[in-house]
Amino acid sequence: MEKLRNGYLFPEISMRREAHQKKYPDAKVISLGIGDTTEPIPSIITSAMSEYALGLSTPEGYQGYGPEQGQKGLRKAIAEKVYPNMGIRDTEVFISDGAQCDIARLQMLFGRDVTIAVQDPTFPGYVDNGVIMGQTGGAEEPSGRYAGIEYMRCAPENGFFPDLTTVPRTDVIFFCSPNNPTGHAASREQLRQLVDFARRNGSIVVFDSAYTSYVSDSGDKPRSIYEVPGAREVAIEISSFSKFAGFTGVRLGWAVVPDELLYADGTRVARDFDRVVCTSFNGASSVAQVGGLACLATEEGREAVRRVVGKYKENTRVLVDTFAALGKEVYGGDDSPYVWVRFPGQRSWDVFAEILEKTHVITVPGSGFGPGGEGFIRVSAFNSRERVVEACARLTSFLA
Amino acid sequence: MEKLRNGYLFPEISMRREAHQKKYPDAKVISLGIGDTTEPIPSIITSAMSEYALGLSTPEGYQGYGPEQGQKGLRKAIAEKVYPNMGIRDTEVFISDGAQCDIARLQMLFGRDVTIAVQDPTFPGYVDNGVIMGQTGGAEEPSGRYAGIEYMRCAPENGFFPDLTTVPRTDVIFFCSPNNPTGHAASREQLRQLVDFARRNGSIVVFDSAYTSYVSDSGDKPRSIYEVPGAREVAIEISSFSKFAGFTGVRLGWAVVPDELLYADGTRVARDFDRVVCTSFNGASSVAQVGGLACLATEEGREAVRRVVGKYKENTRVLVDTFAALGKEVYGGDDSPYVWVRFPGQRSWDVFAEILEKTHVITVPGSGFGPGGEGFIRVSAFNSRERVVEACARLTSFLA
Repeated sequence: MEKLRNGYLFPEISMRREAHQKKYPDAKVISLGIGDTTEPIPSIITSAMSEYALGLSTPEGYQGYGPEQGQKGLRKAIAEKVYPNMGIRDTEVFISDGAQCDIARLQMLFGRDVTIAVQDPTFPGYVDNGVIMGQTGGAEEPSGRYAGIEYMRCAPENGFFPDLTTVPRTDVIFFCSPNNPTGHAASREQLRQLVDFARRNGSIVVFDSAYTSYVSDSGDKPRSIYEVPGAREVAIEISSFSKFAGFTGVRLGWAVVPDELLYADGTRVARDFDRVVCTSFNGASSVAQVGGLACLATEEGREAVRRVVGKYKENTRVLVDTFAALGKEVYGGDDSPYVWVRFPGQRSWDVFAEILEKTHVITVPGSGFGPGGEGFIRVSAFNSRERVVEACARLTSFLA
Repeated sequence: MEKLRNGYLFPEISMRREAHQKKYPDAKVISLGIGDTTEPIPSIITSAMSEYALGLSTPEGYQGYGPEQGQKGLRKAIAEKVYPNMGIRDTEVFISDGAQCDIARLQMLFGRDVTIAVQDPTFPGYVDNGVIMGQTGGAEEPSGRYAGIEYMRCAPENGFFPDLTTVPRTDVIFFCSPNNPTGHAASREQLRQLVDFARRNGSIVVFDSAYTSYVSDSGDKPRSIYEVPGAREVAIEISSFSKFAGFTGVRLGWAVVPDELLYADGTRVARDFDRVVCTSFNGASSVAQVGGLACLATEEGREAVRRVVGKYKENTRVLVDTFAALGKEVYGGDDSPYVWVRFPGQRSWDVFAEILEKTHVITVPGSGFGPGGEGFIRVSAFNSRERVVEACARLTSFLA
């Protein structure tokens, strides 16, 4: 814990927001910061949760502990609807209270003595949970890199994908696609390289697909790592209802641990993960699970959720156009709710602070996602169309 | 993970139950096994959750991420209603998805290099999460004790409380009262000894009060460790809505980490726990939190919950009377939903298997809670009155 010196990124931003609001009590702050959904959940989903909750007061409707691994029906719906034709069995799907919690449980499973690689930049949760588990040395200044972690640089210059011939072997590789924060979705060829690399090295890939529902329909970018042959033998996939169905507060996610994923001694990783789930967790809220099933079970539910994702994707378009019109180097957006903007020669926290001071718009400093994010900011599409448009107007006056 | 060889107790029982049901397809199995609530949740609570869930489909009612530490109102209600006059501040209450998950997060916080003590017998989660974190050596056969853990024997012979003058110092002491499985609630004098012992040794007590709502009104048994002077400087308390409001499936609990609890270097434990919560967890389901608030906010809610606890307590009385009438040594029950029955000279799993075979009643073998539980079974009051009475009739014919 001592090594984890800096504030966690989002609480830090939240503190700065409060300070700003105190300084400017009348300012209408617009948050394009934390990736928190703002659109209401479709009523087909909330009605299912509402009815289930009410039923808990009746002898017929009451349910206590469910299986720690999640309700059978939900596991089946995920296997069939999220992973069609990928050979995922319902027993390989472990329902959770969100991808962040699964990262922690996976890091508990891996323990202190593993080596890990992460994209740079990437979501801070992989590294931070590794630091808590004692996998790393201290943080180096001023980069903020932790000793012992392999940072795989993902920048515009390399198509946001590392040259794997130069990456040393690690036991575990955390890989987020579409990436948070860059918004880059790995191509089929890139994921093929990743899977081959892991197979050659006997590494486990933890593939975070929390933003996969934002991938465009062009077809050349896989929505799951299991679209790539051989992935079942090397990859765990974690994902979430948060960004896909607005469940950030309701809390629901899942992890897929295929039966073919084995340790060097031939035992199944899934057996140990099951044990961690049963020991450290007692299952996701039954109410949330009913909501998750309503998202997936019917075409009506799936269409309702797609419409919400579509709204955020329109916001992303507005953001990309705004920054492009300002002559900025802008990435992401096509396959993700995040836009990644470069401010050459500037420090991310300075850009963040200047934008907040001048426009009352919250963004996220790219350096919060790793040293490779320095000089960028992440702008989130999670807000109402109206506020996104207003924020873009302010940004345009300020940056033009 | 290698060391954690045996199946986790409750999944193991669940497998045996399935096998039994397969062998006797027509048998009406009655579970007095896992401590899973069966009574419906009072409608004042489910209505609140139901309404909130429905509101998530409206712009006014929608909420995304809440604070990782929980909703302010709920933290406040717990501080005021669960800990009246104990000086607990709302900021010291961390809302969670259940006590078992908090045990895992606390073990993550403590890390691999701490020494721990547990009651023997006790809830297996403390030890199992410690084994996953790498705190222990391997399991010794046949006792099942893990090397490196201090087992504090709690038996009828010592009033279910260890002689602390013979217990070596450890960094952390897990203490569950009312105890699961023995049903013993520590007296004020016993807790005073425990707090003094921890203060002298510079140990942290993790006090699990998940069953505290079952403590009788006699007044000589504290419902919280914070009733004992000095506890704020040594104790974390974890607790849950599961057994108190029937939230085993809804998932809601909390941990109290007082500001005065410091590491040897003078830094606050709460600061690090906050960091673990923000890194490894994203808050309890918002729907569950609304339900939790409805349990506590009004006298009507509190009374509704008390009535449910009262029903289980009547079941406990039936169970105690049944075993007593059979001439068995029987403990617990007064202050807990568990009854602890001795079968001298027999092995717990044999007793479990024989009862299941002959009466189709599920109990829990005492040895599943540690070597000190050998020769006992735990019988749970969590079932309908009708089924408890039926189970008692069967047990009487078999054991008489």
